Amino acid sequence: MTDLHETSRRLAELNLTHATLLVDEARARRNIRRFVTRAHAAGISLRPHFKTHQSADVAAWFREDGVDRATVSSLGQACYFADHGWRDLTLAIGLNPREMDDLTELAGRIRLGVTVDHPAQVEALATAAPTPLEVWLEVDVGYGRAGVPHQNHRRLAELAVAVEAHGHLICRGLLTHAGHSYGGDSELATRVFHDAHHGLATLRRVLERPELLISAGDTPGFMAVENWSGIDEARPGNFVFFDLMQHAAGVCTDTDLACAVACPVIGVYPERRQAVVHAGAVHLGKEALDTPDGPVHGRLLTMSRHGFGKLTADGVVTGLSQEHGTVTFDSEKQTAALTPGDLLLVLPVHSCLTCEQFAAYRTTDGHQLQRYARI
Amino acid sequence: MTDLHETSRRLAELNLTHATLLVDEARARRNIRRFVTRAHAAGISLRPHFKTHQSADVAAWFREDGVDRATVSSLGQACYFADHGWRDLTLAIGLNPREMDDLTELAGRIRLGVTVDHPAQVEALATAAPTPLEVWLEVDVGYGRAGVPHQNHRRLAELAVAVEAHGHLICRGLLTHAGHSYGGDSELATRVFHDAHHGLATLRRVLERPELLISAGDTPGFMAVENWSGIDEARPGNFVFFDLMQHAAGVCTDTDLACAVACPVIGVYPERRQAVVHAGAVHLGKEALDTPDGPVHGRLLTMSRHGFGKLTADGVVTGLSQEHGTVTFDSEKQTAALTPGDLLLVLPVHSCLTCEQFAAYRTTDGHQLQRYARI
Repeated sequence: MTDLHETSRRLAELNLTHATLLVDEARARRNIRRFVTRAHAAGISLRPHFKTHQSADVAAWFREDGVDRATVSSLGQACYFADHGWRDLTLAIGLNPREMDDLTELAGRIRLGVTVDHPAQVEALATAAPTPLEVWLEVDVGYGRAGVPHQNHRRLAELAVAVEAHGHLICRGLLTHAGHSYGGDSELATRVFHDAHHGLATLRRVLERPELLISAGDTPGFMAVENWSGIDEARPGNFVFFDLMQHAAGVCTDTDLACAVACPVIGVYPERRQAVVHAGAVHLGKEALDTPDGPVHGRLLTMSRHGFGKLTADGVVTGLSQEHGTVTFDSEKQTAALTPGDLLLVLPVHSCLTCEQFAAYRTTDGHQLQRYARI
Repeated sequence: MTDLHETSRRLAELNLTHATLLVDEARARRNIRRFVTRAHAAGISLRPHFKTHQSADVAAWFREDGVDRATVSSLGQACYFADHGWRDLTLAIGLNPREMDDLTELAGRIRLGVTVDHPAQVEALATAAPTPLEVWLEVDVGYGRAGVPHQNHRRLAELAVAVEAHGHLICRGLLTHAGHSYGGDSELATRVFHDAHHGLATLRRVLERPELLISAGDTPGFMAVENWSGIDEARPGNFVFFDLMQHAAGVCTDTDLACAVACPVIGVYPERRQAVVHAGAVHLGKEALDTPDGPVHGRLLTMSRHGFGKLTADGVVTGLSQEHGTVTFDSEKQTAALTPGDLLLVLPVHSCLTCEQFAAYRTTDGHQLQRYARI
């Protein structure tokens, strides 16, 4: 438990009183630089997804490494980043015809890409103000969430023709999110990556539209695959922080984990080897990793004067209600060494969802980072 | 699908453009009145939990029915409601010794109850500013989350003595949350309610402290049990809105369901009988109801000019990612009748978690209701 007490002491030095979202800036910057370097070496455009961090301050770290374009998943996020100087954004979620007024306003001031997979979306774009817009055709490469199935060449060809019938719409390419690469291992992620690329390349050939770009965006795939050739644009997002899900899949190491939640202990129950923290589903997000021992909602990280440390051998978040988190330890003695008021550092299962639960970040150096607030 | 199109039309009349949290005010007020009437008839104090709605505007509906005290689950919520005129609040979550400064400041301006189950929490109260505070001993009646197990008479007796060693601390009673009543049916909720009450009454007798009040607070129990006698204070919260979990447990009917999320359709996939809405885990909260057909994250409600209608026979939220929700229908034809831009009304699984995801409510009459914003 020495590691946990050292962690609690370090967190206390930051004067944290309640559940607080923390970022290890050095790690996040290293994660960013690694991806930028790889994209540069592969000669492909990196358009990172900012839905993970939704922070103008974190976005500035990307800009320092030469990134000048990004992906978002809501019009609100797009407006937020546009207000913070981002001039080239792709809204990588099916176009919502109800938002045309705000969307055309935004398209009037930045270079904006939108995503469609249905004729009614093209129609909405056509009847709105004729602001130049780059249109991506969303393709389903097997995830089964959104997009025209990649085998449906006819529907995709018709969609492209519908887009190009309007002078202010530019058909930019084929966009996919191979979300079925999550939750498995590197082997699965590699197979999904190659299948997706093969499906999109075939589609581009069949459509006889070599000018269409191929944009793909899942962190596991880009981490698992060495050679990114054939992809024109990479849109992963989670890699800036990673999380327990990515760690369990083997696509990152302990020292890549860059965001976690500092949680105050408010109950200690040695007889059942459990402590309760005031950090529940509303802080950590109710995502679970299925394990043979049951669902896991987080694991404990250590912290030293240098920032985050490593995953501890024990200390698992086994339960979450609205405001309570239950942490289960291996031994009664370890549990009994805790006291209400101690601070534990919880690595979340899915950082994208956890970060959404907070209005701001603190860095391990004590700085405040701002975040987009959804309305 | 006529019902769904009528619903979409009604929601469109509210000029909704993106995922929006809606409340049927008439239903919520009726839910409140029913509980107030029952508590009054039973002669017990109603101290509703405001963590469900976290809204000063909804709280005002309680006040109109004579409620002048409430329960909260964070110091932030307590300060918010104190700022909105609530003068008698119980913080029904294990005391966090790191928050003593803000807590004693608040205790200086309202009547504040706090919850302890560990000597270190009593110590924190003792060493802080000597502001009068009402202290509740948290008792675990079988949920296994927080509190001293009810059989552990010695530890509870010691805790009571420790509290009363300090002149500014008043030992108010025994507080429990029988959370194991959730997720089952009325029979389970009834059994849990009676077991909990029996455990607490026995405890009070063994401790020879008849003056200690018994405070209990789970919606399923109070809904399932007719006779509340023996409980001094009721702290349920969910009953103001209810949700799919309560409906599935049979503790409420269709016409009690008072909060839901209006969700824009952004993708239609008749071949797999699915539509995608721009409302994901960050809007609905990633809670699931386990069913034989897999996890359910919400079901569709209808809406008419009079407000919310009833649960539809089909239309189930079967998947949630960060910003996307996948709705599965019974037939291909029903699905094909949808178009991007339509609005669906989704009843969430757990309203407490869903409401946390929004900065404000809209009523079905179009009014805006404010909400506490967690910092």
